Amino acid sequence: MTAAIGTLAVIGVGLIGGSLARALRAAGAVGEIVGCGRGEQNLALAKELGVVDHYTHSIAEAAASADMVFLSIPLGAMRDAFAALAPVLQPHALVTDGGSAKGSVVADCRSAAPALLPRFVPGHPIAGTENNGVAASFATLYQNRRVILTPLSENATEDVAKVTEMWVACGADVTEMAVEHHDEVLAATSHLPHMLAFGLVDMLAGMKENDEIFRYAAGGFRDFTRIASSNPEMWRDVCIANRHALVPMLRAFSAELGELAEMIEIADGEGLLEIFANAKSARDRYIDGVQAD
Amino acid sequence: MTAAIGTLAVIGVGLIGGSLARALRAAGAVGEIVGCGRGEQNLALAKELGVVDHYTHSIAEAAASADMVFLSIPLGAMRDAFAALAPVLQPHALVTDGGSAKGSVVADCRSAAPALLPRFVPGHPIAGTENNGVAASFATLYQNRRVILTPLSENATEDVAKVTEMWVACGADVTEMAVEHHDEVLAATSHLPHMLAFGLVDMLAGMKENDEIFRYAAGGFRDFTRIASSNPEMWRDVCIANRHALVPMLRAFSAELGELAEMIEIADGEGLLEIFANAKSARDRYIDGVQAD
Repeated sequence: MTAAIGTLAVIGVGLIGGSLARALRAAGAVGEIVGCGRGEQNLALAKELGVVDHYTHSIAEAAASADMVFLSIPLGAMRDAFAALAPVLQPHALVTDGGSAKGSVVADCRSAAPALLPRFVPGHPIAGTENNGVAASFATLYQNRRVILTPLSENATEDVAKVTEMWVACGADVTEMAVEHHDEVLAATSHLPHMLAFGLVDMLAGMKENDEIFRYAAGGFRDFTRIASSNPEMWRDVCIANRHALVPMLRAFSAELGELAEMIEIADGEGLLEIFANAKSARDRYIDGVQAD
Repeated sequence: MTAAIGTLAVIGVGLIGGSLARALRAAGAVGEIVGCGRGEQNLALAKELGVVDHYTHSIAEAAASADMVFLSIPLGAMRDAFAALAPVLQPHALVTDGGSAKGSVVADCRSAAPALLPRFVPGHPIAGTENNGVAASFATLYQNRRVILTPLSENATEDVAKVTEMWVACGADVTEMAVEHHDEVLAATSHLPHMLAFGLVDMLAGMKENDEIFRYAAGGFRDFTRIASSNPEMWRDVCIANRHALVPMLRAFSAELGELAEMIEIADGEGLLEIFANAKSARDRYIDGVQAD
């Protein structure tokens, strides 16, 4: 049996790209894997670890022989990547990505390489840790995790199916969603929480007794702020790329906090209890009920 | 050797009180343990589990024979508890508590039972989980955790030492702090994060696509919102009790989010990167460096 994907080019061999490579390799679902990136050290490590078979710093070189190209690079680098891919891609080759916002990536493809649109199937694996680089990647990252594809009207059904198959081979649960809807859902469940965690730790770090503050931070604080240890460059790109969905939510939440402060100030116990009880019941029902890990 | 504490009365046999009882029992540092609370079922379970030797629903009855009284009840119930303790307490007996805010508890003691102040050593174990009730308690909850005592000028040094010893017997790391300072540090590291988690889940639960939103929440969201599964009544009491420290912080954070929204809207990548990088480095340095668990 031939591997489902002959040659895979992974552009950006970090946690996301490296884990895809490892998972497909472990599933016997890929022939050859070419890595591409900027950092020599990370790529050399990727080869040493067997995550990629060989590597290059040139997107064009990596993509030229590929049957499938996976873009797992910061959102701010997508536009240039599409421009580099367009002239060299084989006619049958497909492109997909792992970006946390989809509208901006589709816009980048449309402006830098419109002819590529039919063969670009946008995607987003809902998985990750706060660690970076190929050293943090592992073959089971996507097992039982959701991957959202946001197919374009330009995509052929069988191409969407091929990208779906790739993720299924990694153990993921693949669903489809409209681009704008994806961006709203992710702003709510991921981008907004990241802003809160980054913002909180930044504010506390600026207080004069910050040493002491962090010394007395207990387990709840560690969990709550874990996502503030995520890659700052990546998150700068994500929040700018998804600003149309994120900014209104951030403003709405800022207003919600103002109301909460008001209720606490006037000691409105009933109102507070309603909010806290509603939150607890929603979390217990949806989160712990739906996906245990 | 006699146990360090002859008879301990635990007023409120939940996660915090139950875990203290279990830890002291495991350390052989207590003779008899009397439990007190409102819920018959929880108390019966506490006895069945061996967490308490016997129990009563009357604070006065529980405290009458006690050498040490531990108040692990909601902050809103402290005032009545002090009033109930005052007439029955043996002259040598000490009182301490586990409340998350200390200024309000001291004020409650001062107003309900001023004569008790010299023998009340306020305390706060920085430990917990989002679970409640004696069933959630365990003997190692306080091991290597910090306990903050906020001794009063009225307290005798040897009484503070006895409460310190009790916590040391549980494996805790005991430090002292002024009441107001404790309340500021806890507002920053615990009360504010809880407000953010409760507020976020409440807001998302109110969105029309909330089903879908929670379905796509990944691991980071689960960690971030874990504290939103905490006890709503307890948190209503905490945030009202500590409102003087909490409300200004909540307002400051709401303003910080407004600024963040502004930066994202105008795509100020440099400014965002500075905030995110500052947060990441503070968290990596302080949290992961200081206390691993």
